[in-house]
Amino acid sequence: MTTLFLIGIGTGNPDHVTGQAIGALNAADLILIPRKGSTKSDLAEVRELILARVLARPVPVAAYDVPTRAEQDDYLGAVNDWHDAIAKVWAETIAAHPGAQRIAVMVWGDPSLYDSTLRMAARLPGVTVRVIPGITSLQALTAAHAIPLNTLAAPVTITTGRNLRDHGWPEGATTLAVMLDKGGAFTAIDPAGVTIWWGAYVGMPEECLIHGPLAEVSDQILATRTRLRVEHGWIMDIYLLRRGGDV
Amino acid sequence: MTTLFLIGIGTGNPDHVTGQAIGALNAADLILIPRKGSTKSDLAEVRELILARVLARPVPVAAYDVPTRAEQDDYLGAVNDWHDAIAKVWAETIAAHPGAQRIAVMVWGDPSLYDSTLRMAARLPGVTVRVIPGITSLQALTAAHAIPLNTLAAPVTITTGRNLRDHGWPEGATTLAVMLDKGGAFTAIDPAGVTIWWGAYVGMPEECLIHGPLAEVSDQILATRTRLRVEHGWIMDIYLLRRGGDV
Ligand SMILES: C[S@@+](CC[C@H](N)C(=O)[O-])C[C@H]1O[C@@H](n2cnc3c(N)ncnc32)[C@H](O)[C@@H]1O
Ligand SMILES: C[S@@+](CC[C@H](N)C(=O)[O-])C[C@H]1O[C@@H](n2cnc3c(N)ncnc32)[C@H](O)[C@@H]1O
Repeated sequence: MTTLFLIGIGTGNPDHVTGQAIGALNAADLILIPRKGSTKSDLAEVRELILARVLARPVPVAAYDVPTRAEQDDYLGAVNDWHDAIAKVWAETIAAHPGAQRIAVMVWGDPSLYDSTLRMAARLPGVTVRVIPGITSLQALTAAHAIPLNTLAAPVTITTGRNLRDHGWPEGATTLAVMLDKGGAFTAIDPAGVTIWWGAYVGMPEECLIHGPLAEVSDQILATRTRLRVEHGWIMDIYLLRRGGDV
Repeated sequence: MTTLFLIGIGTGNPDHVTGQAIGALNAADLILIPRKGSTKSDLAEVRELILARVLARPVPVAAYDVPTRAEQDDYLGAVNDWHDAIAKVWAETIAAHPGAQRIAVMVWGDPSLYDSTLRMAARLPGVTVRVIPGITSLQALTAAHAIPLNTLAAPVTITTGRNLRDHGWPEGATTLAVMLDKGGAFTAIDPAGVTIWWGAYVGMPEECLIHGPLAEVSDQILATRTRLRVEHGWIMDIYLLRRGGDV
């Protein structure tokens, strides 16, 4: 009977880890973490930092090599193959640790939000999946700016940079939260009357925040993003766009 | 120099509290909590339970009476008056504790999501506001069902029961998360091809989950909701609706 715990760890601030996550990590028989160098290295280090902080007993940690995602025209096909490949690496790693029944995977942010871990886990036969929520980058963003996500009783749409570029501002939306933007998808919309709250590396020591009327701060965000990306070798950013009143 | 810390505490599971929240509560000079009986009592008790668990030193706690919200036709007007009234109670309570510079308020879930604490705090002159994120009811829901919030790379709209009733399914949306539903707003939409993941008291010992094709489980959810509401004297529920494939 194998149980796979998908544990949300927040987006880089070890203080965002919950008591439930700490409990599950300590109760695990095996923790799977991506090997350093096989992914953005700062992110691999955050996992190790968290483990060094929270583990009250020695738990075996198995580092696995993250398969690379093929760059192919068929986007969904490539993603599916990649999920298969990671599930296979996990299954092999788990098989190499006979007796390990409680397996933990540390998931960036919250496992529900633009993350594939649940889809990978579903590919492992005979494994029970348990999810432990974590603070998302969207919450780290709104907390850092000290702003509400929604205006009073109004809806919010969470979307990707690609969707914003391809489909524009969704009909009837007041607030848009944009993630997974390869850079500046907000330039694709009419900035009139739109306010932006932008953040890179939110929750991390490198955190950088900019906000203001989109028409006024758009160029500053683009320039800052380019500079930070060069400086750190990688970037993750997220933003909220609001039309009309700022209630 | 007064700083008001709005601290997300999750939605009833004390294990969802983060290290950052615990640190801020311990560092406070004063913690404001709603007086028992002046709000749904189980919720007031959760705050006390969390404090009893996490405080490593004695921190003064001031209980305040939550003003009641007027039932008036002008919804926004009533809400505004209510925010004013709570801000006034906070200001008076803080003034009664001279020397307290770090004031903590425990916010249900995350302070960014359908919560008015930030708007109330903005009414206090000369006060710096800091937000500490917490696990939302939406994350507690998706974790309990072990499901992703979004389908692959697709947007998600978070909305209220009232919006769903009044405006129907938003154009182009695949996934809707519905909160603040007075009961069964999902009956207002065409259930064909829609799957629902419903949860009441998510994260709490009373947690109750139902999921399935909306057409099949709609009545069961309505009946369960009515029963639970009578049983506990109050209810909070939340759900995810998804159209089409369940990727
Ligand atoms: C694959 S998604 C994972 C999201 C994650 N599960 C969460 O809960 O935030 C990656 C995207 O999340 C956002 N993101 C994650 N961590 C971030 C951070 N520390 N600062 C800014 N954006 C971040 C960025 O938009 C990035 O493109
Ligand atoms: C005023 S909003 C506050 C939301 C909160 N800030 C959060 O982050 O979840 C109240 C609504 O949140 C949802 N909710 C909050 N706690 C819940 C729980 N434990 N179980 C189910 N729904 C909950 C319900 O939809 C409820 O009507």
